[in-house]
Amino acid sequence: MAIQVIHFEYQGQRRWGVAHGRMVDPLPGSFASTADFVRDGIELAQRSARAQAVLPLDAVTLLSPITTDRQFVCQGINYASHVRESGMDPDRIGFNTLFTKASSCLAAADADVLRPAHVRLLDYEIELGLVLRRPLTAACEIGPDSLHEWLAGVTIVNDVSARDVQLPQAQFYKGKSYRTFGPAGPFLVLLSADEWRRWPELHMRLCVNGQPRQDAYCGDMLFQPHQTLTELSALQDLRPGDLIATGTPAGCAARAPGKLPMWVARHLLSEQGKWRMFIDKGLSNRAYLQPEDVMTATIRTDDGAIDLGQQRNRIVAA
Amino acid sequence: MAIQVIHFEYQGQRRWGVAHGRMVDPLPGSFASTADFVRDGIELAQRSARAQAVLPLDAVTLLSPITTDRQFVCQGINYASHVRESGMDPDRIGFNTLFTKASSCLAAADADVLRPAHVRLLDYEIELGLVLRRPLTAACEIGPDSLHEWLAGVTIVNDVSARDVQLPQAQFYKGKSYRTFGPAGPFLVLLSADEWRRWPELHMRLCVNGQPRQDAYCGDMLFQPHQTLTELSALQDLRPGDLIATGTPAGCAARAPGKLPMWVARHLLSEQGKWRMFIDKGLSNRAYLQPEDVMTATIRTDDGAIDLGQQRNRIVAA
Repeated sequence: MAIQVIHFEYQGQRRWGVAHGRMVDPLPGSFASTADFVRDGIELAQRSARAQAVLPLDAVTLLSPITTDRQFVCQGINYASHVRESGMDPDRIGFNTLFTKASSCLAAADADVLRPAHVRLLDYEIELGLVLRRPLTAACEIGPDSLHEWLAGVTIVNDVSARDVQLPQAQFYKGKSYRTFGPAGPFLVLLSADEWRRWPELHMRLCVNGQPRQDAYCGDMLFQPHQTLTELSALQDLRPGDLIATGTPAGCAARAPGKLPMWVARHLLSEQGKWRMFIDKGLSNRAYLQPEDVMTATIRTDDGAIDLGQQRNRIVAA
Repeated sequence: MAIQVIHFEYQGQRRWGVAHGRMVDPLPGSFASTADFVRDGIELAQRSARAQAVLPLDAVTLLSPITTDRQFVCQGINYASHVRESGMDPDRIGFNTLFTKASSCLAAADADVLRPAHVRLLDYEIELGLVLRRPLTAACEIGPDSLHEWLAGVTIVNDVSARDVQLPQAQFYKGKSYRTFGPAGPFLVLLSADEWRRWPELHMRLCVNGQPRQDAYCGDMLFQPHQTLTELSALQDLRPGDLIATGTPAGCAARAPGKLPMWVARHLLSEQGKWRMFIDKGLSNRAYLQPEDVMTATIRTDDGAIDLGQQRNRIVAA
């Protein structure tokens, strides 16, 4: 059965545990990094029993299940629905867009998201996060049925994005890396080989102030986990506990303008003029996040057998 | 006096030392990460004496002075000369372009650079690398005279780039992250407060097969180290041993096409058509790196008082 691992602080100590309903079984030992937990804690978690769940979930302080010493690799434009709303043709996406977020943006699933003073177009992106189990240090072909060998589990990631920094500056890193821009968790959900086969059924939903904004199945993604792992293995090293965020479906606040403004922007405006138009238009788009807005995000199979929990993050002006 | 720290392997052990001419003084202890060296090794290095330099430099195997557990943050288009050859107007660069390379691309200063089989337009970028001394975990204003408080030293970085991946795929991460695409060193040069003031005098030179390609002073950079540190402090955490590559001057193999082809590409070609033209043109550009080519790179003040050593990297078909 899918195991809901939780990283938390209780009585001044950072600990790991397994959630059983609204109670937590605290695991013995302490793991400073998700790398250590993945190496030495998974077996402990597999032996966790409901009878040992003595801590109420409400009594602990949530921490990100991915620690900030890990790599935070991201896929971009990986759902046809999001490609379309970004003004592109999904049939012409010939490659897997990869970039990173600074790992220091990782935050707890209930943390406040700080909007920097200069950011006006703050956006959300619910994503399925994959967490590495084994080091991946050389090119190898990973099949769709061997995800459990390479991955420890899954978690919810919100790839919070300052569109007025990210898009005009072309490279995504800065606009997506501000501290608190990466709520992760609440759970790192460990999956069995059989459960890994069900990843396409994971249902992502994100609301702002209770209003539905994103609603899609992970199975809609363009570049699937085994393809991305295969490609990454030929590019770079990945280590236990590293995080791969697999892209977001439609429903973000940011939308490409219509065909006419796109043509005008491409042919008649300077680079600066184009982005001035984008930002001016964005300022009147009420879908962008404002201070005191609350995002809630869930990912689970519709039968509830695999449940990554719920994020709840309030926007706060920094 | 600027101290040339070297990370090396000798008789199966990874060690740190100080170079005195062609001899090395091996420092006591072992530091698994550049973070550990910066925290505990700098004082040892400052006490190093020529009389203790018992190992010939030629007898040791060079390692990157930045270990792969550190962050590798990069600035793009940070020299007016490189902005111009990339087809942009340096007066219109209104922001500091930031991105990352995967740290696993870090390689020794004499390592072979592996050209992946699918890469045809392989390019070089000599850059000044800044290495963090203290954790930077909150926004702060860093003045030009306090670099020594935040930075441990400098090193040569070659930001090797697969242009036919980097540019068509828009996000720079993938095309710049293949293993061996980040030769660093040979030395991590520790600077005193007085020496830090001389960073603009550092003279970068890169040759391919002995033919000069890049030749510029670091003082030409657009966003200077204290400005970049100030901006990064408001964005993300930096930790001891993390690396910031500060951008490259003119002279890369990749060049923007002339004004007419640029106009045609922008107004008449599809996105794919534009990049097909770029790659086709690149294939006949003999400045791109080919297997067996050898890059040499040096950074030093013209009086030789601060000398970051020499990189020598051969291109090998993977």
